[in-house]
Amino acid sequence: MARYSPSVQNLISKLGSLPGIGGKSAQRLAFHILSMPANEANELADAIKEAHRLTVRCSVCQNFTDSDPCPICSDPKRDRSTVCVVESPRDVSTFERMHGYKGLYHVLHGVFDPVSGKNMNDITLSQLFDRLTKSPDIKEIIMATNQTAEGNATALYVSRLLSASGIKVTRLASGLPMGSDIEFTDDLTLASALKGRVDISS
Amino acid sequence: MARYSPSVQNLISKLGSLPGIGGKSAQRLAFHILSMPANEANELADAIKEAHRLTVRCSVCQNFTDSDPCPICSDPKRDRSTVCVVESPRDVSTFERMHGYKGLYHVLHGVFDPVSGKNMNDITLSQLFDRLTKSPDIKEIIMATNQTAEGNATALYVSRLLSASGIKVTRLASGLPMGSDIEFTDDLTLASALKGRVDISS
Repeated sequence: MARYSPSVQNLISKLGSLPGIGGKSAQRLAFHILSMPANEANELADAIKEAHRLTVRCSVCQNFTDSDPCPICSDPKRDRSTVCVVESPRDVSTFERMHGYKGLYHVLHGVFDPVSGKNMNDITLSQLFDRLTKSPDIKEIIMATNQTAEGNATALYVSRLLSASGIKVTRLASGLPMGSDIEFTDDLTLASALKGRVDISS
Repeated sequence: MARYSPSVQNLISKLGSLPGIGGKSAQRLAFHILSMPANEANELADAIKEAHRLTVRCSVCQNFTDSDPCPICSDPKRDRSTVCVVESPRDVSTFERMHGYKGLYHVLHGVFDPVSGKNMNDITLSQLFDRLTKSPDIKEIIMATNQTAEGNATALYVSRLLSASGIKVTRLASGLPMGSDIEFTDDLTLASALKGRVDISS
């Protein structure tokens, strides 16, 4: 006897294929969904379809948006000389939450990661280079990919390709997080903070 | 400016209302869904609707099923004198996986839990008592609710209500898990194992 009916088994396997949801969580979610009133379950399903249907990638920055170009790219108050290059749409919202950045963005939708089979064509690097060619206003590219081997490699790759272009390529500072204790800092972070030490003598 | 478009915000909030999915996970899931090909996203949405549409509660045991009565309740090989009362459909599948139980089940869909506002009417206790009235074959009720305060209270409540009925009410043994070390056993489990010690003298 099958453990669950085919439709329930299908739901469990679909949920289990989402990132961070293992077999047990998928079962728990599936049974929670089955316990919901029918209208709530349908609303969840429709939210998935609607969000997918209404969302496109901004033709300029590649971020997800429901209007193209996206609100940030079409905002006349943004500084068009600076482009912050991030891995994911969530990174854009993290920057926006900070309220300290007024330039534009470019969303790579990943990083160069040969181990997991992601190469340069899977991320939006060619769109970035197209954009740089078409927009002479851009003077600086801030590589805000994550502080991982893949994020660093992608940043380095972009900086090399742009070395002759006259566009400044910068990387977010790495070092000790604000409020952190040196005692509990990992070696790589401490080494990076030491290497990047800044002069505070007056 | 809103952080995300309304349809994406709606998807995030719907996902975030599922159990075990916090704000960050909901964002990550939503953007994963937006990155999926349209047909995969629609299949996920349809799996939710289909599973919900095709799944009913078995009129006998209250487990989720696509045929009423469910395969277990309609299986002539099952022992109709014993009913194992569990909290959730997942518990049924755990028992079935063990292959050591041949009786029937009753799914409560929760336990008596006054703290979170769950009372006797929110779980399927009245359906259990109806079933006992209509099925004179039933000789034993195994209360297999979880070993928690709420699970124990529900088991005790059922045993008291059935005290005059002539139906035997049992509870799963509590004690040391197989393969466990006494050194790492918590006090409550050890006390329970000591209290429930069994005679092995030949």
